[in-house]
Order: sequence, then structure tokens, then C-alpha cells
Amino acid sequence: MSSRNLPYRLVEGGVTAPAGFLSNAVQCGIKSAAKLRLDLGLIYSERPAVTAAAFTSNKVKAAPVKLCQAHLRSNDIRAVIVNSGNANACTGPRGICDAKAMASAAAGQLDLNPTQVLVGSTGIIGLPMPMERITPKIPELVKGLSRSKNDDIARAIMTSDTKPKSISIEVPLGSKTIRIGAIAKGAGMISPSMGTMLCYITTDAAVGLAELKKCVSSCVQTTFNRITIDGDTSTNDTVVVMANGAAGNRSIKAGGSQCETFHNALEWVMLQMAKAIVGDGERVTKFVEVIVKGAATHMDARRVAETVANSLLVKCSWNGGDANWGRIMHAIGYSRARIREDLIDIFFDGHIATRNGIAANTPVEVLRKVVAKKEFTVTIDLNIGKAGYNVYTSDLSQEYVDFNRTEYAAPVKA
Amino acid sequence: MSSRNLPYRLVEGGVTAPAGFLSNAVQCGIKSAAKLRLDLGLIYSERPAVTAAAFTSNKVKAAPVKLCQAHLRSNDIRAVIVNSGNANACTGPRGICDAKAMASAAAGQLDLNPTQVLVGSTGIIGLPMPMERITPKIPELVKGLSRSKNDDIARAIMTSDTKPKSISIEVPLGSKTIRIGAIAKGAGMISPSMGTMLCYITTDAAVGLAELKKCVSSCVQTTFNRITIDGDTSTNDTVVVMANGAAGNRSIKAGGSQCETFHNALEWVMLQMAKAIVGDGERVTKFVEVIVKGAATHMDARRVAETVANSLLVKCSWNGGDANWGRIMHAIGYSRARIREDLIDIFFDGHIATRNGIAANTPVEVLRKVVAKKEFTVTIDLNIGKAGYNVYTSDLSQEYVDFNRTEYAAPVKA
Repeated sequence: MSSRNLPYRLVEGGVTAPAGFLSNAVQCGIKSAAKLRLDLGLIYSERPAVTAAAFTSNKVKAAPVKLCQAHLRSNDIRAVIVNSGNANACTGPRGICDAKAMASAAAGQLDLNPTQVLVGSTGIIGLPMPMERITPKIPELVKGLSRSKNDDIARAIMTSDTKPKSISIEVPLGSKTIRIGAIAKGAGMISPSMGTMLCYITTDAAVGLAELKKCVSSCVQTTFNRITIDGDTSTNDTVVVMANGAAGNRSIKAGGSQCETFHNALEWVMLQMAKAIVGDGERVTKFVEVIVKGAATHMDARRVAETVANSLLVKCSWNGGDANWGRIMHAIGYSRARIREDLIDIFFDGHIATRNGIAANTPVEVLRKVVAKKEFTVTIDLNIGKAGYNVYTSDLSQEYVDFNRTEYAAPVKA
Repeated sequence: MSSRNLPYRLVEGGVTAPAGFLSNAVQCGIKSAAKLRLDLGLIYSERPAVTAAAFTSNKVKAAPVKLCQAHLRSNDIRAVIVNSGNANACTGPRGICDAKAMASAAAGQLDLNPTQVLVGSTGIIGLPMPMERITPKIPELVKGLSRSKNDDIARAIMTSDTKPKSISIEVPLGSKTIRIGAIAKGAGMISPSMGTMLCYITTDAAVGLAELKKCVSSCVQTTFNRITIDGDTSTNDTVVVMANGAAGNRSIKAGGSQCETFHNALEWVMLQMAKAIVGDGERVTKFVEVIVKGAATHMDARRVAETVANSLLVKCSWNGGDANWGRIMHAIGYSRARIREDLIDIFFDGHIATRNGIAANTPVEVLRKVVAKKEFTVTIDLNIGKAGYNVYTSDLSQEYVDFNRTEYAAPVKA
């Protein structure tokens, strides 16, 4: 990521950029015995920290998610151990035992209580964890903790991702400077909603627990929840934010300007990770923001945005460079939002394609130029109310797109 | 289709198999000037008929759908004119004029009132109809009406379909024999919910209008609505059933055994067309029935069935021959149905894969043999209530499946 025009100064180090955080990763052979890949990672705070987290809304929750929810009750978290290759989901009581064993083994080596360790897993569902390969590696994992292993842990959490995702920034806060660092993994599939999303964020800011919880919950709403489709979350989705106060700032309290500064910085970090997840869909060629305005209710705006962003036909047309607003109208029509067909306006990067539900006079070439870009916005104005919503999404490529192209990706105007 | 083991005798003729029905199709160049393809069809009843229909639930409705709903009020329908290549959707007042012009031109040639003609369209959304190419062809269309042109009209309604879909059967009814004939088109895409579905059915049975309406509404629920995902219907979806009484049976009234016989036969015809639409997805290799049992409510059962059938990850695993029940659990979890993870059982063709939410002891080879078949069932028992639902769906192939395969389509059991 280039530093030009960014609202924050980028620094090196990812989750180990903030003071007092260490990380490491090792290879246990969980992913595949044949391929030599890192698959077990650890993040550790040298100081006590407060922790806030958000988990999947899927009713089938993986064992590590259940364990994290239990361990967060006392909120004295110091470490996160996370593996890829096996989701430890649909594994019953044995899965819970295995997740506990991971926490206990790490805690033993770190001289912590097991409830001070969170566990994360991502990978195949329904297989027992190969604990015989994991447990023996934990001493090595702990021993190698350092401030220079962020790239390793960012890689260790990858499954079908094509590249590690990490960011860290510096944020002036009163007379101090705090840092926020993050690693994330999504899925190299067509829709982020189709794979597990994990994101671990560290900060050396001092923040009150209640304020941190409020910030995390609010920031997740406007970032990660804008790249998944309502309810369609995996068994393992997890966002964890640990704040250890090593920056020495006065603890951030609700309502102040410092709280706002922190909130905005955290939101920006989460948004970069959310965007990186969307952009990492294998063969994704477009990053598209769908903006809905003029809806009767917030829920209606959300329905329209998510339905359009999730429409395979719409995504296919973007891939083909086709400003096919008809497919967008179609998707709006089945979104279950309250609409009036003859009031709908649709814009590509501000150029009107559809006015009052039918073709506007904008030349096709103008619209095509927008869709030919790597990033663009689609704005839908329902013109019946004041509510809005936005989501981030991608195109959809590959042969079945080619197939769809042949019949329908004809000119929008004859 | 082989006649063996079928509940009805198949006959030739499709929509012209029932007495008193004629059809024809011509080529206007709507689809593409370069390709010589039939794209305008006509079905005509030589006798007065009663007509029942079901239309899309999409809030953006194509002009021909609106026109049909108006023309059905007087219910004196004698003909259907239908084109492919242009959906006449999102075309505003001009679209309505064009649909009316199609009905009027056909009516003029057939010596009917325009309100006696239904109109159907399928194809690209948002383009004005090329009426200058359509209207001049209508005299030829009417002139060529015959009992031997079913194959032509079945082809004329195709868009991305790979083959025409048609069936006709003979049904003993008291001392008479009635016939039911049908043509349909779906979409050669991965999910029928992604394209327009049209189905035109003729019968020479005499049926009361109220009975016919009841039958059509009920049969659509258990057939076409089992291949689309809730609400996700196109701007043009249409099912029309015309009954002209030429078979000379005593008019079918509600409640009698003849009503049941007719209902079952009509349902069977619709089911064959629905299955043909699913099976015609380009590169589809599997036809799968997803059966949900033991749900707390009918809506919950439907949510689970539709969510599983619509899960791209589940469909990918079927394509890869992988009995990946973990992905099914994942989809059940985000279906928003009431569930208890530790009560869920999943079966492939009756072989249990998942018991109480975790892997059952059935050998993987047994499950794989089922998924290797061209047709199989997936049964999900939620074990918390008595409601059920079923849907028909397909696998999903192509490169992006290959991509998904590499990481996750590992053995279900180690």
C-alpha cells in the first residue's frame, strides 16, 4: 500500500508494531503433510491488556469460538493461538477439549492461566484436530516469539488466501503516539461470505474495556459487516482487538475527542483489512462499492445493497466490463425492499445509467469506461426515503462468466 | 425421456398434443442479427379456453407480465405470443405499448380481441423491443400455425438453454382420455434463480376456472417454486396453463377424484419441466434433491433447504464428488432457521454422514459413491419438530470450483 494520501502514517510490524506485542508462527502439518506451510501462530502481549471481540452469527459455532466467548468473561487475555487447515467445527465435545488443550499448552509455556489465552481456527469443518501434531510444536512456537515475525503469523492464518494481509499505523493521540496493527485472512473465493474471516488487531493504546467494546462493535458494523451478506457468516468468523496501554496515553474514555480519534483509526484499519479480503478473491479484477440512497428504511437500504452486491449476474457483468443496469434493476426487484420501479436512478461513478427505472441518455461508452476501471462505485437512489447503506464487493470471473456473457452482455443500449 | 416406470403415457406433440391447440415459431432477428435462430412463437387454441397463470414475485415486473395480468381479468384467452432475446423489462411506458402492439398484431391476424392474447418475453433487460423486426413477422407466424411445430416454439423461447424442453402426456379421466402438453425454458446458468423461467402448458381437459386456478397455484408451489430461491425470481417469470375442453370430459370440479387425477398429472408435468430446467444448467453434472425434516416450522424447513441448495460451497463439493457434510452444517447454521447443532443428522441417499452434528461412522467410500452418482438426495433431519420441505438443485462446476477443491475438498474423515 502506498503511503500517499493516506490519513495515517504506515509503520512496519503488523500486530507487533504496537509496543509490548510479540508474535511467532510454526508449521505443524495441519494444512497438508506434503506442503511445507506455516499453520500455527501466536500473538502475545507482554503486559496486561483489555480485549474486545466479535464473533460469527452462524448458529453452528466452532469450538474455538465457544471457548473464546467463555474466556472473554474474565477479560484478562494475554495471548491468542490460532491455526489454519482445520476449523475445529462440528467436532462435538472432543472439539472443545482440543481447543482447551491448545489454550492450556500455550498458557503453560507462557506462564498464564488457560483462560488468558484465546484460540482461533480456520480450515476444513468436521475433522478432529490433529492434536498430536499441534501440541508438540507449542514450546517452539512460544520460544520464538519476537517483534519481527508478523509476516509469519499473517501467513500462518491463510487458507485459500493468495497473500498475507497486514497493516500497522501510527496515530497521534494528545501528547502521545499510539499504534494499531492488524493481520487478517479471508477467502480466495468469489465472495467473502463464503469463507472464514479472521482478524487480529493489537494496539498499545490505553482504552477502557467498555469503550473498546463499543468501538469494536461499531467499527465491525461499518467494515467487516459491509463485505459479508446478512447472516451468511462462517462457523469461525472472529475479530479480536487487544489493547495493552504500552503507549502510555491516558486511558481513552467514552465521548472525548481522543475516543473519536481512536475509533476512526480502528475503523480505518478494519476497513483496509475488509477491503484486502474482498480484493484477494482469486481472479477478482474489480473492487466495487455499492451505495444505496433514498430507501424507506435502513433495512431496505441494506437489503438492496446486499442483494445487488451478491447477485452473480451483476458481478459477471462487471467482470465483462458491461454497465448492465438491467441486472441491477432485476436484483433490486427481488431484494424484498420497498421500491417503486419508476423512481429508481442508478449511477456508475456518478454517471447516470438509469433514470426513473429506464435507460438514461448517458452514452454507453461513458458507462463502459467506468466499469473498465479496477475500482468504481455503483450508486442506487430509490428516491422514496432517506435511509442509506453501502457494501464493498467484487466482480466474478471465470468460465461460467464467459458463458453468461455470450447471451446477455450485449450493449445496454441498442 | 424413457417411458419405463413413468406414471403417465408419453405422447408426441408438446403443447400441440392436446386437441385444439396449434403452434408456430419464426425468426425475427431479436436475439442476434448474425445468428439465425427462432425467437418469436405463438400458441393458439381453436376453441375457447380457461386460463390460469402464475407470475414472478419480483417487484420489477416486465411489461408483458403486467399486460398478462390485465388480460387475464376477463379470462377469455385464446393465444400466447412469446419472444426471446429481449425481456421488455425496465422499458417504461414504451414497453407497455410494445407488449400491447404484439398482442394486437397477433389478435388482428387471428380475428381475436387483443385482450384474448397473452404476451411473454425473455432476454436482455432495459432495451426497447425491436418492434420493426417483430410486427412484420406476425402474419407469417399466424399463417404457419399447425400441430407439428412444437419443437419450433420450444426452441423459440430458449435463451441460454442448451436444449428445448417439452413434454406431453395422456391421462385417463373417467371414460375419456385427456392430454397435457408443455414447453419451458430456464437458464443455462448455475442456478435457475438466475434467469427467466417460462412455462406454457396446454390441456384439452374441461376444467372449471376456479379449479384450474387452484390447481396451478398449488402445483407451482411444489414444482417451480422448489427450484428457485425464495423471492429471487426474474422480472419475467411466467407459468400459463390453458384448458380448452376439447377432450369432451365432464368439466372437472373441485373435490372429486377427477380433480385429484388432473392435479396430480399437472403437477407431474410441471415437475418434469422444473427438473429439466435444473438439469440444463450448462456444465451441470448432478441433480440433487435436498430434503429437510424435523424442522420447528414450515418456514424453517424451507430456509434450511433453500440455503443448503443455494450454497456455492456445497454445490462445489458435490461437483468434486465430495460428501462434504461440514459445508452443509455451515449453511444450516446461517439459514436463520431454529436449529440445535447437536441434534442435526445428515444423510446422503439414506446413508448417515452426520449424527448429532458430528461425523457419523459411515465409511467415506460409501458416501462418496452416492455423491459420484448423477442423481442423489441429501436429507437433513433437524430433529426438533415435524415440518419438512424439499428443493431440487444442481452442482456447480468450472474453474472456480477447481480452485475451491484444492484447499477444502479433503477427506471428510481423516
